[in-house]
This record gives sequence, structure tokens and C-alpha cells, in this order.
Amino acid sequence: KVNGDRLWASIMEMARIGPGVAGGNNRQTLTDADKVGRELFQRWCDEAGLEMGVDKMGTMFARREGTDPDALPVYVGSHLDTQPTGGKYDGVLGVLGGLELIRTLNDLDIKTRHPIVVTNWTNEEGTRFAPAMLASGVFAGVHELDWAYDRVDAKGLKFGDELKRIGWVGDEEVGTRKMKAFFELHIEQGPILEAEGKDIGVVTHGQGLWWLQVTLTGKDAHTGSTPMPMRKNAGLGMARMTELVHQIAMSHQPEAVGAIGHCDVYPNSRNVIPGKVVFTIDFRTPHQEVLDAMKARFEAEAPKIAEELGLGMEIEVAGHFDPVTFDEGCVTAVRNAAERLGYSHRDIVSGAGHDACWINKLYPTAMVMCPCVDGLSHNEAEDISKEWATAGADVLMHAVVETAEI
Amino acid sequence: KVNGDRLWASIMEMARIGPGVAGGNNRQTLTDADKVGRELFQRWCDEAGLEMGVDKMGTMFARREGTDPDALPVYVGSHLDTQPTGGKYDGVLGVLGGLELIRTLNDLDIKTRHPIVVTNWTNEEGTRFAPAMLASGVFAGVHELDWAYDRVDAKGLKFGDELKRIGWVGDEEVGTRKMKAFFELHIEQGPILEAEGKDIGVVTHGQGLWWLQVTLTGKDAHTGSTPMPMRKNAGLGMARMTELVHQIAMSHQPEAVGAIGHCDVYPNSRNVIPGKVVFTIDFRTPHQEVLDAMKARFEAEAPKIAEELGLGMEIEVAGHFDPVTFDEGCVTAVRNAAERLGYSHRDIVSGAGHDACWINKLYPTAMVMCPCVDGLSHNEAEDISKEWATAGADVLMHAVVETAEI
Ligand SMILES: NC(=O)NCCC(=O)O
Ligand SMILES: NC(=O)NCCC(=O)O
Repeated sequence: KVNGDRLWASIMEMARIGPGVAGGNNRQTLTDADKVGRELFQRWCDEAGLEMGVDKMGTMFARREGTDPDALPVYVGSHLDTQPTGGKYDGVLGVLGGLELIRTLNDLDIKTRHPIVVTNWTNEEGTRFAPAMLASGVFAGVHELDWAYDRVDAKGLKFGDELKRIGWVGDEEVGTRKMKAFFELHIEQGPILEAEGKDIGVVTHGQGLWWLQVTLTGKDAHTGSTPMPMRKNAGLGMARMTELVHQIAMSHQPEAVGAIGHCDVYPNSRNVIPGKVVFTIDFRTPHQEVLDAMKARFEAEAPKIAEELGLGMEIEVAGHFDPVTFDEGCVTAVRNAAERLGYSHRDIVSGAGHDACWINKLYPTAMVMCPCVDGLSHNEAEDISKEWATAGADVLMHAVVETAEI
Repeated sequence: KVNGDRLWASIMEMARIGPGVAGGNNRQTLTDADKVGRELFQRWCDEAGLEMGVDKMGTMFARREGTDPDALPVYVGSHLDTQPTGGKYDGVLGVLGGLELIRTLNDLDIKTRHPIVVTNWTNEEGTRFAPAMLASGVFAGVHELDWAYDRVDAKGLKFGDELKRIGWVGDEEVGTRKMKAFFELHIEQGPILEAEGKDIGVVTHGQGLWWLQVTLTGKDAHTGSTPMPMRKNAGLGMARMTELVHQIAMSHQPEAVGAIGHCDVYPNSRNVIPGKVVFTIDFRTPHQEVLDAMKARFEAEAPKIAEELGLGMEIEVAGHFDPVTFDEGCVTAVRNAAERLGYSHRDIVSGAGHDACWINKLYPTAMVMCPCVDGLSHNEAEDISKEWATAGADVLMHAVVETAEI
């Protein structure tokens, strides 16, 4: 079993970097806080005797040697970046849970045949630079490196420039590493495990996703003196599309979700009818046909709303992945580990996207989930118990060690 | 008649200060650009032999002496501040039209019994610091000076501090000046005069207004993994209230307008359900009972929307004035001037709020309007012709000179 106190202490130490305003974290990718977080992780890896490699996307790979020089490594990990108002565990648990299993193997002087590599994927969250899971996406060949470097944040800064600025451009080509398997431990970010009192979620599938960025163009004009019929109110168009997105998601309930989380209104003045809005829709479901149907219905109905209000409309894809089925062998290793350790468990679908979803395209992959309070995540109040974290790291260690062979 | 070419040249020179991004202006109140605009106006007033007074709200009063030392001055003017994406004429025409009538009287060596004072009211727009017409409101005793100083902009900067920073805190107590009358020339900011081919609008009334700032509080949570029934989506609440505001305005059409021009979403991340939104409603109508009914209906129905979605709701008044009836004598002076000069005219209601609306509480007041292209205002593409501007300034001059007595 892992050392739960040590794991918890490391999580709390990481949480001191990039503190939020309400007890959580704002350690967005490629910020100064991200840089400091990386340095701390690097120091811990050095202390555990791991060898660090960094690729051109800034992803960190900390390797513990195996006994067989030709054996493919087993990878574990997740991400250290957070939402602007994020929690202390989303991503962090998976990286530090991986580190903890190494520390435990070191303590017990256990050698594995296959090397084990703990990974910190860059820009999993996708808030500052869309899309999410950017570095693992480049690794999996879904995105080009140059395209990733050209992603811009809200201030117009480029991903590539910011990665250089914080000093974490590695020399390793992205995606050249071969893996025997990849395991990711993560908090559920949903309410199911807690509600059912389960210690462990054995993740069998991941939801697919469409992020659609919509721009509506009307005419900014004086709110007081422009008669109602002469308006082209882009804000009203956004309101109606927000309702449409909600109705589309509700019509596929409980097998789908959808909302608009990001929107910018121009010129955003109390007495000016909005002349332009930009907003992003997030649609998800584990079913391919439902995923496509949601997007198709929005694309069919939204232009009617725009036309009725005299608005121009553009839709751009800001992120996309198809539903994921994880590797049966790896999933079984997770389920067996939970069973063997005596933790209650159930099979579960991941509501969020994860780096594991991309890596599953290349190599056998699975995920371990632990509960979180109220299912709350992407919120500074995100919370888990030390026991939940420990159970998750235990299951992760057993699944990894079984795969890496003693 | 005034010198239309000179008036136009001055408007164009002022428009070079605080240029916008699309041919208009961004010379928001108490910015560096506002400071430079004030200096230019001061220089022009000096050249015209006027004596400048400045009050503690930074309002500029440029006085041309009358022949009777005891006669109360006739005031003209408007404002030089603009919207963030504003036009070249909103406000500016009224200030520089006032200056032009002085220049014309100087050219013709005409003396009036009553002094004439050209005024530049501070912060008419109210975009940077709500509410609008702030300085004229303090002058009219509607707001306290200290309260005005404490208004904050989106960056948290205070009105009083910014006024000091640009060096325009005058030593004169606000509201101590007595006026025989006040006349304000302004572009219509609506489509009626142009559509009917009229040169001049004789403004008999002004719309009343409610600005209501609404804060909705939900729960920011992960969009992908939070089941639809467990959400508290503040963005959806805002969407439904945007539709409610639209329906309320439409139900009183064509005698009312309403929209939401300003909204901020938190944390504004693609994959986070909005946990908080802040937005401002602008309701207007010339009818007191309709104005109160619109506000009352919103206050009755909006809480039901909030409750259904599990949202907390707070409503704050961010601006308010009652409908205005201008002074019959001053209105007649404007109508007679238009008639005498042979300009086509009609009586009209002002859709926008103006400094004249506050001054009308204290002293006989009226407004002259000229058409603007497509009724477009609070937009960089705001446009008028030199002929329209000249006709407006002509009518202003004749109404003022009749009131100031030769
Ligand atoms: N786990 C997680 O929050 N990933 C970010 C991408 C997503 O929104 O699903
Ligand atoms: N004229 C003008 O745009 N005034 C600003 C206040 C208002 O919105 O009516």
C-alpha cells in the first residue's frame, strides 16, 4: 500500500503554488505559477532518483529504470495545470499519485521488469489555450506541433511563445516514446461514486465532445433611441442559442450534457445594444450518434435564430474528440486491483476529457477514478478525502506494478 | 447664420483625439484622451475670448460677457466624452455648436444683454463610471458629490481619483451657478428625423430610464461531468432574463425599448458551467406608468427564473431618471428659430438621456436635435452631414440669442 500521508502532504504543498481566491488554485498552463509547480515536481522526481525527459510541448516524463533494458515502459500520470478557478486535485492527484507509487516501490526496494514513467502533460485544461489535452493530442498525432504553438490566449499570446518564456521547451520530439500501457488516476469530477458510496471508479469509456465557438455579428447602436424593430441585437441571439443548447442537451438526458461556459460581449456597455458576441458551446455524450446529432441540431436551428434577428453567424470547432473505449486488458487490471485490495468499485464513464483519452489511440490505456465531494470540480471548492486519494493511488500502483511485472 | 465649415473643421479636429478602431472615437471620460480633448477645447475658448470656470466635478464653463452685469447667463453645451466605440458627434456637436455660435457673434460683433456660457459636462456617457450624466446630476442635486467621487470603473479606479489624475478638479462648488435657461444641441441617435427628411427635431420630452444591475449566483462546475439536473447554471439564467427583458420591451412597443448591453460571466471558461453572472438592463419609455410597469414586471418574473434554476439573485439600481417634459418657453424658442430660418422640423421625444434632462429640473431647458445616418449612435460608424450640423447650430444660435436678448 502507498503512503497516504505523504501523498496528501505533497498535494497540499503543490496547492500552495498559484493559489486561487477561495481556497483552490489558479495555476493555469504556461503561467509563472505553472513554472514554479513544474520546478517543484522536478525536485521531487530528482529526490526519487528519476530521470527527467521533456518534449517540445513541455511535457515532463520522469523515468524509473526497469530490470530489462529492452522492456517498454509503463506510463502513469496526468496534469499539473488548473482552471482559473480550479481545485487542488483535478490532474494533480494523477501526477502525484504516480510519484507516490514510485516512492513506495523505492521504500520497499521493489524492482519492476518494465521501467515506469511518471508524466505531467502540458495544458490539459484548455482554458487558456483551447483545445484541452493539447500536449497529449500532439503526442497522439491528433494535432500538429506548429498548430499547437500557434494557439493564442485571450490576450493574444501564443502557446509556443509562452512555453519558451517559462523555459520549458524540451529537446525531445513529441510522440516518439513507445509505451507498454498508460494509466491515469483522476478525481471523478461528477457525483456518481460519492452518491453510491464507491471507493473506486473503473473507467471503461470516455465521453466524446464538441466545442463550437460561435460568433454573432449584429449592429451596436444606442439602446435608448433605437426602435425595437430596427435592432440587430447579438446579445439576444446569444441568449436564444444558450436556451437552444440547453434544450438539445436536455432532450438526450441523462446520456448527454451541454452548456455555454465562455462568452464575450462587445462593446459591453450598459447603453449599447451588443453588436457582436463570441461564445463557446460544450456538448458531450458517450454515444457517437448522439454526439453527432447534438451538433447537427445546433447547426440546423441556430442559423434560424440568427436570421430572425438579422445577425451574421460563424461557427468554428474549438475542440473535438470522439467517445472513447478504454483497453480491456488495462481496464481489467484496474478492476482486479480494486478487487484484490478490497475497495468497493463500479464501472464508470468519464464525463471529462483526459490525456488518457488521446493516449488510448496509440497504446493500451485505462483510468482509475476516485470520488469527489458533491461531484464538484472546475471550482475552487473541489474536495476529496485523504482516504479516497489513498485508495485511488493504491489501485493505480497495483494495476501499474502488475503491468510492469515484478 | 453660423460658419458651418468652421464648425465642421473643429469637430474633425476634436475627433483626432482618442481615435477608435473603426473611424469613430474612444475618448472615455477621465482618460488621457479626455484630458487632451479638454485642453483643445480650453485653447479654443481662450482664442474666442471666453473666461473658463471649472467645478469640482470637472465640468467646464466658458463665459462670454453680456452687456448687463446683473443678467443671468444663458447656458449652452453638451459633453466631449465618448463611448468606448463611440462616434464623432454624440455630445461633441453640442459643445462645439455652442462654441461656434460664440465665434459667429464675435465675427458679427453682436453683444447680448445676458452672458452666454458654453459648457462641457463631465461623464455624460456613464460607460466607464455609471450612472450617465453624472456631473449634471450632481449639479442638479440628484447625486451627492462624494457619492460621485466614489463611482468605480471596471478596473476598480474611482471617479474622484481619476479626475484628480487628469488634473481637472476645479475649485468651484458644484451647482452654485444660476441660469436663465439651458439649451443643448445633440444628434438624434435615432432614425426618425432622417426617415422623415426633417432638418430639426424640437425636443419636447425625454424618455425615463431604469438601469438595473443583476447578479445571479449559481455554482461553477465541470460542464462535462456534472449531470444536467445537478446544475446551477447562472449563464442560462442570464439567457432567460435577456429574453424576458426583450419580451417586456416588445409588449410596450413602440413606446418603450429595453436590452442588456453589459454582461460579465464568471469564470468564463469553455468547460465550466457559469457560477456567476453580472449584467445590466436598460429599460426606457417616455411614459411614467409604463416605466414603472416594466421594472415591476421584471422584478416579479425574474425571481421565478432564478428560483427554477436554483440561482441566487440580487438587483441593484445602476441608473434612473423619470420621463422629462422640457420648458414650454424654451421649446417654443427652438421651434420659432427653426421656422424663422426655414428649416423643416418636427416635435420629437429624446430616446437617450442628456445633461439637459437634469438641468431641466432647475432651470428652463430645451434641446435641438439634428438627424444622424440610419439613426446609428454609440457606434464608431455614427455619421451626420455638414448641412445637418450647420442647421442644428443655426437653430441653437437663434434660440440662444433670442433668450439672451440683443
Ligand atoms: N479533466 C478535465 O477537466 N479535462 C479538461 C477537458 C474537459 O473539459 O473535459
Ligand atoms: N445621449 C446619450 O447617449 N447619453 C448617455 C445616456 C443614455 O444612455 O441615454
